[in-house]
Amino acid sequence: MAAPSTTTPDATAALGPTARTAVKRLPARAAYDRATIHAILDEGLVCHVGFAVDGQPFVLPTTYARIDDCLYLHGSAAARMLRTLRAGVPVCVTVTLLDGLVLARSAFHHSLNYRSVVILGTAAEVVEPGEKRRALEAIVEHVVPGRWPSVRAPSPQELKATMVLALPIVEASAKLRSGPPLDDAEDGAIPCWAGEVPLRLTALPPVTDSRLPVRATPPAALAGYSRSRG
Amino acid sequence: MAAPSTTTPDATAALGPTARTAVKRLPARAAYDRATIHAILDEGLVCHVGFAVDGQPFVLPTTYARIDDCLYLHGSAAARMLRTLRAGVPVCVTVTLLDGLVLARSAFHHSLNYRSVVILGTAAEVVEPGEKRRALEAIVEHVVPGRWPSVRAPSPQELKATMVLALPIVEASAKLRSGPPLDDAEDGAIPCWAGEVPLRLTALPPVTDSRLPVRATPPAALAGYSRSRG
Repeated sequence: MAAPSTTTPDATAALGPTARTAVKRLPARAAYDRATIHAILDEGLVCHVGFAVDGQPFVLPTTYARIDDCLYLHGSAAARMLRTLRAGVPVCVTVTLLDGLVLARSAFHHSLNYRSVVILGTAAEVVEPGEKRRALEAIVEHVVPGRWPSVRAPSPQELKATMVLALPIVEASAKLRSGPPLDDAEDGAIPCWAGEVPLRLTALPPVTDSRLPVRATPPAALAGYSRSRG
Repeated sequence: MAAPSTTTPDATAALGPTARTAVKRLPARAAYDRATIHAILDEGLVCHVGFAVDGQPFVLPTTYARIDDCLYLHGSAAARMLRTLRAGVPVCVTVTLLDGLVLARSAFHHSLNYRSVVILGTAAEVVEPGEKRRALEAIVEHVVPGRWPSVRAPSPQELKATMVLALPIVEASAKLRSGPPLDDAEDGAIPCWAGEVPLRLTALPPVTDSRLPVRATPPAALAGYSRSRG
């Protein structure tokens, strides 16, 4: 696996659309600029990875991290998904942030507010130890910024048992909906409430593990844990 | 599209595993009983639909609803995803609920708590008007229980512009992780905090749409909106 390009990406440069990533339904909701795509990837915690085995698609959730224009996946070196992807089959990785319910006056205009990114391509195994370690660090830091220095780093055996894959973020698109319901004007007199119900992923108080000796209280940053970058 | 079976499903009956849905990694985290699978589907708001076009997998988010052993999808009759699925290609629908962060003393044992369902099969278009209407009602009620009677029902033109697909929930599996990190005993002396950070999808106060005349205040039930069934 070649190291990612060291040139600084232009955040305003577009990543498409290509014939495969062009958003066909409601193209006004599409975006192809790096800044939008990267922000959605950086806020998400879980992606859904699509690949086919013997013609049957599979979609599996997993966590990930982004470094520049590269998305990293990881897991057990024995996992079928990673072993399948490593062979270079086409993959689709989708990240969806659910921002709210959109309740209209008509059933037809009900919707959801969301931001999503779709990446198409092929993944390659990361075998260079430095890049592999940086990817694993990025994944831990993606979930809880600042945590990596406080935990035990992977042992050689753990590194061997872990597979890391890199997917270039080259062919990608975002789709976004925000704002109120778009009711038909003639439905304005319908006497039901209409509007948005914003949704947020929020953290409850941390639950300390009591299985092993406890030496620390929860880091203060966890009390305000949020994925929202807004 | 045949109507779903009218026999009452046995909630304890298993839906597999089949060779394709058997959870291979960490099989102790798998479940195949209807009650577990249905509860996850009923709590989720968004599924990720996987299908292939010319060998390229695509994974797109959309909402859905379940009636008995059938999952309903809907969207514009012009949408490529629905038109592709209608042709009977293999599909995978995955619903993932993210329950928390699992922060271990070693990088290696970091994890996420989650509940997910994977359904494999082929979808068929729902053309019978009664089933189509019931499916659309189920989708609105899935998002906001009790809302359907208060909104304008779909017009004939809206019904024509909407495609509904039915996917039998026959070949399906669930995978679940809960609980604390599973650190190695020899890491017990590492002085970093370890435990779980529970995550919840929560609703902020409703935002009333001001584009059309407002006749109602937000329903009281929206103030306590939650997907959690626990």
